[in-house]
Amino acid sequence: MKSYRKELWFDIPTRRAFINITPDVQACLDDSGIHEGFCLVNAMHITASVFINDDEGGLHQDFEKWLEELAPFDPDGYQHHRTGEDNGDAHLKRSVMGREVVVAVTDGRLDFGPWEQIFYGEFDGRRRKRVLVKIIGE
Amino acid sequence: MKSYRKELWFDIPTRRAFINITPDVQACLDDSGIHEGFCLVNAMHITASVFINDDEGGLHQDFEKWLEELAPFDPDGYQHHRTGEDNGDAHLKRSVMGREVVVAVTDGRLDFGPWEQIFYGEFDGRRRKRVLVKIIGE
Amino acid sequence: MKSYRKELWFDIPTRRAFINITPDVQACLDDSGIHEGFCLVNAMHITASVFINDDEGGLHQDFEKWLEELAPFDPDGYQHHRTGEDNGDAHLKRSVMGREVVVAVTDGRLDFGPWEQIFYGEFDGRRRKRVLVKIIGE
Repeated sequence: MKSYRKELWFDIPTRRAFINITPDVQACLDDSGIHEGFCLVNAMHITASVFINDDEGGLHQDFEKWLEELAPFDPDGYQHHRTGEDNGDAHLKRSVMGREVVVAVTDGRLDFGPWEQIFYGEFDGRRRKRVLVKIIGE
Repeated sequence: MKSYRKELWFDIPTRRAFINITPDVQACLDDSGIHEGFCLVNAMHITASVFINDDEGGLHQDFEKWLEELAPFDPDGYQHHRTGEDNGDAHLKRSVMGREVVVAVTDGRLDFGPWEQIFYGEFDGRRRKRVLVKIIGE
Repeated sequence: MKSYRKELWFDIPTRRAFINITPDVQACLDDSGIHEGFCLVNAMHITASVFINDDEGGLHQDFEKWLEELAPFDPDGYQHHRTGEDNGDAHLKRSVMGREVVVAVTDGRLDFGPWEQIFYGEFDGRRRKRVLVKIIGE
């Protein structure tokens, strides 16, 4: 069994953003030399997300609006802010969108359906944060 | 390390449905000859879900009602619809329910608790769509 | 390829709780002798969750309040209760928080960012329930 590990670093200038990282993950897979196995991609921070959906700007606006309704940004609205933070909403938004994806690796490629793309979802940006790519297989 | 791959195809006649695919996944595991490892089951489409919960019809009605409240079907309500689609709600519903499950494989069986069953969650049906089963192990 | 399996048992005296199980999972990893691979941690019950977030009490109060708003406890409010259960809300809460996490194993440790901790989320306690830890790798 082979294994491969790489960190992808981000420094998003805004509080929130969705970044398509599919080419970065495929580059990791190419580097790994692994042809059959599983590829785990996870946010290493608890106010960010890795998820799979469509690379369509209108949909991303819908996600942004919807997540703001489900878990609004509110500096005075969360118990977590007694620690001095203002990002309680980001912890909840990330819980909806998920921490990680596991993607099948087949014949050296990410084994995707027609529209699947991997996104980094930032909910509390303006600082350096990381995504972990770990691949195991043969 | 062995690996196994199969696509399960669906053509759900309604917009939304929950289908118990546990027997199909167990049949894949039997085919694979893998006794110890991990089994990934993921929707290959971004308006569908694979999740684990109870096979109880009342609960499925609760899921349907709850998801409709969280992310209502609304042909005029999503920016995504500028592309000509009407399935913005389906992208959001799938985000709540999740794209994938990873199930432990132990002694050639899906290593489940007493009520765990795997479901295909369709949120924009009436066309052919796929689930990927990928198993790695020995 | 090596594989390792262990069940963690819980008997939470309250209906809901968040329990940090990171030391238990690391102990499983130490037992396994696996240095490179994947560690799956999943609830074996469909009214409980395993998720990764921050070990901060205020945030856990925020999660509790937020989940109660999204999917309120309501003995008369769910079709699932026709079976005699009163835990419909717990099935929905668990769907938001997730069934499982997959954690990369690198150099014999859980390959985490600075604040990542694994939690057992109980939404229908007061009875014995289990979490599965399954590790594969070398």
